[in-house]
Amino acid sequence: MTARFISLEGGEGVGKSTQARRLADALRARGLDVLLTREPGGSPGAEAIRRLLLEGDANRWSPSAEALLFAAARADHVAKTIDPAVAAGRWVICDRFLDSSRAYQGAAGGIGDAAILGLHQVGSGGRLPDRTLVLALGDADAAARADARDAGCPDRIGGREQGFHTRVAAAFRDFARQEPDRVRLVDASGDEAQVTDRLLAALADLLP
Amino acid sequence: MTARFISLEGGEGVGKSTQARRLADALRARGLDVLLTREPGGSPGAEAIRRLLLEGDANRWSPSAEALLFAAARADHVAKTIDPAVAAGRWVICDRFLDSSRAYQGAAGGIGDAAILGLHQVGSGGRLPDRTLVLALGDADAAARADARDAGCPDRIGGREQGFHTRVAAAFRDFARQEPDRVRLVDASGDEAQVTDRLLAALADLLP
Ligand SMILES: Nc1ncnc2c1ncn2[C@@H]1O[C@H](COP(=O)(O)OP(=O)(O)O)[C@@H](O)[C@H]1O
Ligand SMILES: Nc1ncnc2c1ncn2[C@@H]1O[C@H](COP(=O)(O)OP(=O)(O)O)[C@@H](O)[C@H]1O
Ligand SMILES: [Mg+2]
Ligand SMILES: [Mg+2]
Repeated sequence: MTARFISLEGGEGVGKSTQARRLADALRARGLDVLLTREPGGSPGAEAIRRLLLEGDANRWSPSAEALLFAAARADHVAKTIDPAVAAGRWVICDRFLDSSRAYQGAAGGIGDAAILGLHQVGSGGRLPDRTLVLALGDADAAARADARDAGCPDRIGGREQGFHTRVAAAFRDFARQEPDRVRLVDASGDEAQVTDRLLAALADLLP
Repeated sequence: MTARFISLEGGEGVGKSTQARRLADALRARGLDVLLTREPGGSPGAEAIRRLLLEGDANRWSPSAEALLFAAARADHVAKTIDPAVAAGRWVICDRFLDSSRAYQGAAGGIGDAAILGLHQVGSGGRLPDRTLVLALGDADAAARADARDAGCPDRIGGREQGFHTRVAAAFRDFARQEPDRVRLVDASGDEAQVTDRLLAALADLLP
């Protein structure tokens, strides 16, 4: 049975980090060796870039500089963490990956999808997850979950205006339409255990 | 009279930083308003990226991650420092720019020239200097100058093996052949004042 690389995607507050942990636990309960990681970050170099990306005010970086920094962090993360883990037979669950760059910088930030895919080709040889699970939740519900978590202190990307987040959510839905085999939209409403069950169902064909 | 953006290029130890200062002084003596800057760096965001690039051991970053970080730093430098200065009527002299990425990561690092130009298109809209002056010096002379300066403590890029630096020097010569209008090869041997005179001659058509 091949180890798989799975990414969790979606806007702020939809429950990605919560479900990444729950999914890792569910796969471990089935006897799989699982590495849980996240972006930006996931390797020492990428974590250093993460600090540059999340510190400072919302306009510290232009959308294009931001896209390049995310691609650099991802290149390091893929080469130093993700690919070695999969090669060693570990399942990798990654909280955000390429599709976040396509949605945030490519679509909502105006850089364009072709440019983001070009950066990913240079940095990571175009490496894609075996399956990408997009958590879909109404904007109001996602904002309420994120507000409850952050108590009014979002980071510099989470703190952007609502129109930006609406464009991000629309982009994720587009990706699922364009690549139905890789990208699956999963209903993120309801309690945590319900959502985890839906995620496992969307992985059923890959699981042992 | 239009303000111009001039880059100084060449391998380690050829005298770029020395001549950037001398050239700035010579242009100021002609009454021009000059901004002297350098890469990686030249804006607060780019200086933060510079620290990531120059710290750590020689293999901290893969060539592709390094290329993305340089492009990110350059995007910030162009948008926040270079373009605003030229728009305000200032001449900009930049110690290293795009052609260093093409030579170090593109040619010597194996990323390829098309990829580096693609990153520059995304980050900086393909912005080129009005003139690029490549200081050309034999490998042994350049290594001797750099050694005398660094007293055996090169940074993580300067510390690479000699074959790498030979490929870099060959790449700069290629660029001058490919773009004779923008890129001029200037003999960097002899004393500092002689070299500055050659640089001024290679700018004569742009100077007031
Ligand atoms: N199914 C759920 N129902 C209610 N709250 C949830 C649910 N899943 C996550 N949360 C809460 O919503 C907030 C945002 O979840 P989080 O996993 O941090 O989202 P993301 O990583 O997508 O931004 C957290 O406080 C989390 O505990
Ligand atoms: N024309 C020259 N003749 C002799 N030494 C020089 C000359 N120009 C520069 N140097 C010295 O060579 C060393 C490298 O010069 P530097 O300007 O730092 O090169 P670069 O910036 O290209 O690496 C410095 O110690 C500098 O003082
Ligand atoms: Mg999260
Ligand atoms: Mg120098």
